[in-house]
Amino acid sequence: MTEKLEKIAITPAGHSAPPAKFSHGVKKGNILQVAGQVGFLPAAEGEEPVAAGPTLRDQTLQTLANVKAILEEGGAAWEDVIMLRIYLTDPSQFDEMNAIYNEYFADLKSVPSARTTVYVGLPGDLLIEMDALAVLG
Amino acid sequence: MTEKLEKIAITPAGHSAPPAKFSHGVKKGNILQVAGQVGFLPAAEGEEPVAAGPTLRDQTLQTLANVKAILEEGGAAWEDVIMLRIYLTDPSQFDEMNAIYNEYFADLKSVPSARTTVYVGLPGDLLIEMDALAVLG
Amino acid sequence: MTEKLEKIAITPAGHSAPPAKFSHGVKKGNILQVAGQVGFLPAAEGEEPVAAGPTLRDQTLQTLANVKAILEEGGAAWEDVIMLRIYLTDPSQFDEMNAIYNEYFADLKSVPSARTTVYVGLPGDLLIEMDALAVLG
Repeated sequence: MTEKLEKIAITPAGHSAPPAKFSHGVKKGNILQVAGQVGFLPAAEGEEPVAAGPTLRDQTLQTLANVKAILEEGGAAWEDVIMLRIYLTDPSQFDEMNAIYNEYFADLKSVPSARTTVYVGLPGDLLIEMDALAVLG
Repeated sequence: MTEKLEKIAITPAGHSAPPAKFSHGVKKGNILQVAGQVGFLPAAEGEEPVAAGPTLRDQTLQTLANVKAILEEGGAAWEDVIMLRIYLTDPSQFDEMNAIYNEYFADLKSVPSARTTVYVGLPGDLLIEMDALAVLG
Repeated sequence: MTEKLEKIAITPAGHSAPPAKFSHGVKKGNILQVAGQVGFLPAAEGEEPVAAGPTLRDQTLQTLANVKAILEEGGAAWEDVIMLRIYLTDPSQFDEMNAIYNEYFADLKSVPSARTTVYVGLPGDLLIEMDALAVLG
């Protein structure tokens, strides 16, 4: 007999409420999935979420902070992430995003995660979205 | 010694045949992956698949039904899903899709899964595609 | 007590260096994630990566070879893959890609993996990108 695994929602304080019935993060067994995060600042309930700023740098750093908050609320860290999916809207921003990314992960204490970057449409003035898959333990 | 895990294809009766050598669903160990599903009605072998209808509502509900059929054929349920990826073609349909989504999942008996929505190109008149990752047990 | 799982980077010899701080593949526990691969030929360090050719066929076969090299370096094979994500830029190339795909996987010794194909933007002259999730054991 194996233990019944519980599916746990991860909702960091300050994260704006999801715009539909989904969880910002979910953990089941040793798998933690972070939902698509964008560069929204923490928002009080009922407030419209607002992006950290208009620039790729503003939004990339806030998106990374939002992913990190979910990982930490779920008992994980960047070191547990095996896959980061990055959605940009403009291929000309790839190099700038990579520079911000490398700077952000300069102190990572594990090998880097895998990553896929593709170029899609995003709503409003959003320039970047990310989601992440982590394996704990 | 650990038991050898078997990779099992999941093919619900009535699902139109995949347009290439892939499986609508795969289970290995306690991981179940649902392939990209669209709003096609069940089709007999050799028939061209046809979308449930031209509207986002038609296609969203049929896509959800198609994902659900794979989950159930694999011994899983929506409650086991940790990540749902949604591909829309038009950001202006986000709110309408969310309303349909929330209605559909009103009776979900677990915390909601994580989710990412991005805007991509899809073939023909398709308006929505979804895939899902579930952890069983 | 469970054994501490190690996160291992997978870097096939000859793979061009990632354009940022990410790993071409990562393994943790029995999960192996392959990062987004494109049709780049093997490149020496410091060299600009070059696509295998201008055609969808050239790039699809090289992309598949690049994914396979990561799987094998990680002790896995196509038979362990449960999900392959395919990013094309043009829906009119779906049928041609499927034909190449079916030919490539003609000798697969397991049921096929699940798959999602969507149409996105890719940099430069790239026509296709793929990533893969494998469950080992």
